[in-house]
Amino acid sequence: MQAEVPITRWEGDTARESVDSVVVEEPLEIRINGESLTVTMRTPGDDFALAAGLLFTEGIIRSADDIGGMAYCTDPDNPHLQNIVNVYLAGDWRPDQERGRWQRSFMATSSCGLCGKASIEAVRCFAPPIAASDFRVSVGVVRCLSERMRAAQRVFARTGGLHAAGLFDQEGALLVLREDVGRHNAVDKLLGAELLAERIPLSERILMVSGRTSFEIMQKAAVAGAPVVCAVSAPSSLAVQLARELNMTLIGFLRGDTMNVYAGAERVYSGA
Amino acid sequence: MQAEVPITRWEGDTARESVDSVVVEEPLEIRINGESLTVTMRTPGDDFALAAGLLFTEGIIRSADDIGGMAYCTDPDNPHLQNIVNVYLAGDWRPDQERGRWQRSFMATSSCGLCGKASIEAVRCFAPPIAASDFRVSVGVVRCLSERMRAAQRVFARTGGLHAAGLFDQEGALLVLREDVGRHNAVDKLLGAELLAERIPLSERILMVSGRTSFEIMQKAAVAGAPVVCAVSAPSSLAVQLARELNMTLIGFLRGDTMNVYAGAERVYSGA
Repeated sequence: MQAEVPITRWEGDTARESVDSVVVEEPLEIRINGESLTVTMRTPGDDFALAAGLLFTEGIIRSADDIGGMAYCTDPDNPHLQNIVNVYLAGDWRPDQERGRWQRSFMATSSCGLCGKASIEAVRCFAPPIAASDFRVSVGVVRCLSERMRAAQRVFARTGGLHAAGLFDQEGALLVLREDVGRHNAVDKLLGAELLAERIPLSERILMVSGRTSFEIMQKAAVAGAPVVCAVSAPSSLAVQLARELNMTLIGFLRGDTMNVYAGAERVYSGA
Repeated sequence: MQAEVPITRWEGDTARESVDSVVVEEPLEIRINGESLTVTMRTPGDDFALAAGLLFTEGIIRSADDIGGMAYCTDPDNPHLQNIVNVYLAGDWRPDQERGRWQRSFMATSSCGLCGKASIEAVRCFAPPIAASDFRVSVGVVRCLSERMRAAQRVFARTGGLHAAGLFDQEGALLVLREDVGRHNAVDKLLGAELLAERIPLSERILMVSGRTSFEIMQKAAVAGAPVVCAVSAPSSLAVQLARELNMTLIGFLRGDTMNVYAGAERVYSGA
């Protein structure tokens, strides 16, 4: 499932308007017998299989027989029915009978509904749009970032198993690099270090991540006030949407001397 | 932070024993004022920055001033003190005063402590080791899997933003393919489809994932009873450990005609 988005495509020092396909990302809430268990950011489709698989692999159910039925939410007041799956268990499952403790924090949805738009609204509650400023970055600086980050990644070269997040200044100097087996952790470690050093908001910084950009990565950058986020790989639809609504610049597919600017193209200019 | 692990390295039809470096993955529990907030699988190091960053980017704190202090757990009965960070907030924070709901399910730790070993024990509670059988795979079949999965991935080619999980039989025929913006979701969708079709356990199947193999990916495969897991990229230390303890075969860096076998090498044999 994909969406077409307008982009500014840079090849060398030449920019042109174009269109790119991005994968769709939307929240899915899984409920058990009407009670919310979890929200996961997913690509819509196969939602019943996703719900069944998650319950199974997390040890909540053991076979298909444990499922009495599954249905999308049918609350007429909720316009986002396709983002809520209700699983009715055949047996006598209650939350306090779970095998383990089931908890992982993340920013869930606002009370106004469950959809991409509502997720963005929830972020806006504690991350206002990036203020207008004259902070801009040149394509010449941006296209060096990936190589500089890789050069600084010591462990990646040996294990291939680490995600990296790098913080750069306007001239492309690497200020902070953090690596972790988890994408979100690398970003949290970097932003946490900046927070503890009292250097938030990161109004004049470029945040670079080694992989893809999801909603949650952009949320973290937004909370830290970083105006420009770059990635080696592709963004999701919701990452692009969040970037646009919070006045952020989002660059993807940063490879060689080419890049796609998915949002905030006015901050990117030609020059070395 | 990395660990050296023994591997069987295949180049073409030739195998040799070798050693590879893998990134270390261990659980970290973050507590607020002594109360557990979340457990995340991370690479040890910079744990205070990680805790501060996570609390900040999830909207729980707004500045370094909100943190009164941070310390590793000092419970003398708990031998895994470096895997628990306690954050003492300066203000009057209580869980029910959070800005949103903070919840995501996942398999957390057993009551006997918080470490890789305990995480594996927790999985064993509902996923017994893979039973011994004569199920084996040839390197000739294995080295075709990556290409076959890519050929079947329609959306990836256009967006570059999807993770894939594929299920293959012993002869390398692709049975099921699922894609998602989230790695775990792709695996859950695939395993959920198999569960609903009542084809669990997957005793004679090969599970292939497009990216890296973490503890959580291996946990899901283990619950489904899949004896062989292959990945294009690197495994974590805890993925390797879980595979070994549950008698699974874990293959990584499946590229061209080379691959690393991190666990269960006896299931892999030379031949087309």
